[in-house]
Amino acid sequence: MRMYDVITAKKRGAELTDEEIAFVVRGFTKGEIPDYQMSALLMAICLKGLSMRETSTLTMEMAKSGDMLDLSAIHGKKADKHSTGGVGDKTTLIVAPIVASLGVPVAKMSGRGLGHTGGTIDKLESIPGFQTTIPAEVFIRNVNEMKLAVAGQSANLAPADKKMYALRDVTATVDNISLIASSIMSKKLASGADVIVLDVKTGSGAFMKTFEDSAALAKAMVDIGNHCVRKTYAVITDMNQVLGRYVGNWLEVREAMEVLSGAGDEELTLVSVTLASYMLLGCGMAKNLAEASKMAREALADGSAWAKFREFVARQGGDVSVIDNPEKMPGTKLTVPVYATSDGFVGEINAEEVGMASLLLGGGREKKEDAVDPLVGIRVDKKVGDPVKVGEQLGILYANDEAKAEAAKERFLGAYRIVKTPVPPVAPIYGYVDEDGVHKA
Amino acid sequence: MRMYDVITAKKRGAELTDEEIAFVVRGFTKGEIPDYQMSALLMAICLKGLSMRETSTLTMEMAKSGDMLDLSAIHGKKADKHSTGGVGDKTTLIVAPIVASLGVPVAKMSGRGLGHTGGTIDKLESIPGFQTTIPAEVFIRNVNEMKLAVAGQSANLAPADKKMYALRDVTATVDNISLIASSIMSKKLASGADVIVLDVKTGSGAFMKTFEDSAALAKAMVDIGNHCVRKTYAVITDMNQVLGRYVGNWLEVREAMEVLSGAGDEELTLVSVTLASYMLLGCGMAKNLAEASKMAREALADGSAWAKFREFVARQGGDVSVIDNPEKMPGTKLTVPVYATSDGFVGEINAEEVGMASLLLGGGREKKEDAVDPLVGIRVDKKVGDPVKVGEQLGILYANDEAKAEAAKERFLGAYRIVKTPVPPVAPIYGYVDEDGVHKA
Repeated sequence: MRMYDVITAKKRGAELTDEEIAFVVRGFTKGEIPDYQMSALLMAICLKGLSMRETSTLTMEMAKSGDMLDLSAIHGKKADKHSTGGVGDKTTLIVAPIVASLGVPVAKMSGRGLGHTGGTIDKLESIPGFQTTIPAEVFIRNVNEMKLAVAGQSANLAPADKKMYALRDVTATVDNISLIASSIMSKKLASGADVIVLDVKTGSGAFMKTFEDSAALAKAMVDIGNHCVRKTYAVITDMNQVLGRYVGNWLEVREAMEVLSGAGDEELTLVSVTLASYMLLGCGMAKNLAEASKMAREALADGSAWAKFREFVARQGGDVSVIDNPEKMPGTKLTVPVYATSDGFVGEINAEEVGMASLLLGGGREKKEDAVDPLVGIRVDKKVGDPVKVGEQLGILYANDEAKAEAAKERFLGAYRIVKTPVPPVAPIYGYVDEDGVHKA
Repeated sequence: MRMYDVITAKKRGAELTDEEIAFVVRGFTKGEIPDYQMSALLMAICLKGLSMRETSTLTMEMAKSGDMLDLSAIHGKKADKHSTGGVGDKTTLIVAPIVASLGVPVAKMSGRGLGHTGGTIDKLESIPGFQTTIPAEVFIRNVNEMKLAVAGQSANLAPADKKMYALRDVTATVDNISLIASSIMSKKLASGADVIVLDVKTGSGAFMKTFEDSAALAKAMVDIGNHCVRKTYAVITDMNQVLGRYVGNWLEVREAMEVLSGAGDEELTLVSVTLASYMLLGCGMAKNLAEASKMAREALADGSAWAKFREFVARQGGDVSVIDNPEKMPGTKLTVPVYATSDGFVGEINAEEVGMASLLLGGGREKKEDAVDPLVGIRVDKKVGDPVKVGEQLGILYANDEAKAEAAKERFLGAYRIVKTPVPPVAPIYGYVDEDGVHKA
C-alpha cells in the first residue's frame, strides 16, 4: 500500500478502506509517513470529507495507537463525561459524585487547563493535600470500593491524535467536524469507559460558535461512540456566558460544593443533573431520562452526592476540614470589584474573554509548564439579561497582584456588551443528541 | 503575512493576492515555509483551483526564483519551442533549422530524456563530436551569426518549480492544470524567448490522455505566456502512436534529416511545419499562418533548412561527414524483426510502451545518471489503420544485447492492439490554441 494512492483516492472523493486508514494512522505514528504527505491527506479530508465509517475507523485506529486503558477490573458499566471546553465549567466536580453515589463507577482520567479553559485536575488540586497522581492499582481499587476516582492523564493516550493535531494546527486543517470528533473520541475510547456523555459547548466562549456546528460535532461524536459499541450521548450547552457564577480553581470547587449541598446556582445544577442523567441512563440505572433526572436531583437533595464528594476528597488525600469549612481557605490579597460603565442590559458576556481575564490573574496557563494560582479568579454578578446601571457591580476579581488585576479588569469589562433594549436570559441547554439524532431543547 | 492564513484562504476557495503568492514562492524556495504547509496549500489548490491571474503570478514568481536568462544580446525576436513530451518526437531537430534558415533566432536550452520520452540533447549527442556544453558567450555568438544554437540546460532555472514539483510528485498534487501549466511555463519564461510555441501531446503516450485535457492545459499555458507578454501558441498533436517511424537517438536524427532533405514522413513533416509556422508568425516573419506554412515548406523544399542543420552541426563540433553519409554510422549488433501474431488492423499503438521498449534496449534512461546507447532503437513499420496478417513485420528492433532485445520485443508487441474491423488512420494534429482560444483542427 502506498500513501500516494491513499491521498489520490481521498482527493478524488473516494471512501478510504479500513485497511487504508489503519495504514495511514500506523505509518504516521511510527514516522514512516512524512508530515508533508499527511498534511496533503488532511487537506483532502477537509475538502472532501469522511464518511461515518471512515470517521469511526480513524477514531478507533488513533485510540489504538497508544495505551488502551483496561478498566475490566472495575465491576459494572463505567461512565465517563467529557466537555469540549468551557469557562467556569465545573460540572465534572458535581456530576461524578452524583452518579457515583447512585452506584455508577466513574474512573476519570482528566487533563489540566490550557488557554482560557480550566481543567478538572487544576480545580481538584486547589483543595489542600488533594492527590491526582495515583498508582493504577489504587485508582482501580478506589473505583471498586467507592465508585469514584479522578487521576491526571499519565498514560500515552492516542499519540496518533496528538501528532496529527499538532500538524493540523499549522496547516489550517483543524476545522473539519470528522477530524475534530475523531480527535476527541479517540482519547475517550482509549480511556476505556462503557458509557460516554459529551458536553458540547456552544457560543462565544467555545470552539463551536453556533448550534448547528455544535449539533454536527455532537452527532459525529455520538455516532462514532455508538459505532464503537460505547453508549454515547451528547448535551449541547451554552457557552455564550460563564457557566454558573465563578471562574478560578478553588472558586469553582466552592461553587460545585454549593450545588452538591443542594443550594447552588440553578443553571449549573440543571446542566450537571442533565449530564448525570444521561450517564445513569446509559449505564442502565434508570428506565428513561425523566427517572434518571429524578434520581440525580434526589442525590443532591438527600445529601448522598455531597457525602460521596467528601469521601472522594478524603480518599485522594484532600483536607476534608477545608471542604467542610470553606472559609478556612485563605483569601486573595485583593478583591477588586468591577463596575458597569453604562446603563442598559447585559447583551452578551464573551466567556472566552472572561477565561482570559482569569488567566491574566494567574488562574490559568498559557503554556503547559506554567504554574497556576489556585485562589485567584472571578465572580460574575451580572449575567445575560440582567439590567445594569452605571457604577453597579458586574463582578469581583480575586487577585494576588495589582498589575495583573488591572489587566484582568480591563479584559473582564471588555467581555461585557451592554445594550439598550431588554435581552432575554440565555437558556443553559440547547439540545441533546442520542442514537436517534439531534433534539432541540 | 502567515502561511497559515494563505492556506486557509485557498481552502475556503478565495483568490490569493499577488503578494500572498510571492510570499509563498519565495518562502518555500528559501526553506522558510516547510513542506507540510506547502503540501496542504497544494492540495487546496488542486481542489479549489487557481484563477488565470493567480496562475500567471505563480508562474512568474517561480520563473524569478532562479536565473532569468538574458538573451538581450541576441538581435531580433527569439523563438522557442517546447513539447510536453512524446515518443519519437524529433520535431525540434526539424523545426529549429527551418525557422533559423528563415532568419528567426533560436537560442534553445534543452533537456535530456527521462523515462519513456527522449531528449533533444541525447539525440544531438548521437552525432559524433557534437557538443551541447557551450560557454554562454559562444552560445550567444552562434545565435547572432547563424540564428541557431542548442545547449544543455546548465542554468538554475526556476528552482521553486523544481522544489515544488518534487513535493507534488509525492503528495498526489500533480494533476492540476494550473500547476502543470505554471511548472512548464516558469522554465520557458526564465529561458528568455519572446515567442513560445508549445507542442501539447495527447494520447496513450502522453501525460494528457484526452483532447479536452490537452486543450485545457494548452489554453492555460498560452494564457500565461500572453499574460506575461510572450507571444504564445500551442499545437495539440497526437501521441496515440509514435510520431514518425523511428524511436532512438541516432535513428531519430536520421529520420529528422530525411524530413529536412524534403523527403521524410509526411505526418512528421506536417507537425514540424505547423510548429515552425507558429514560430514564424509569432516573430512577425509572416502575415498569417498560411503564408508562414508556405515559407516553412519552401525552406524544406529548397534545401535551406537542410543547409542550416548542416551548418549548425558543424558549428557545434559534429562530424558533418556522418550527416552527409548516415550509412557511415556503425549499425547495432542485432536487428530483430517483430512479427504480428494475429490478423486484423492496427487499432492502437501505445506510444508509452514503445518508448519503454526503446528504454529497455538502452536508448533511454530510468534514472538521471544512466548512460544511453545512441544507436539502439525501434523502427515502426505498421501504424494505426494499417491492415496486418499473422507473420507480417510490425517493426524492427535495433539492439546491442540479446536479453534486452527479448524484453523489448515483448514490450513492443504488447504496445500493439490488433482489431478485427478497419480503423481510420490517426490525424497527427488535433487542434491549435492562440490568444482567441482553442480551435479544433
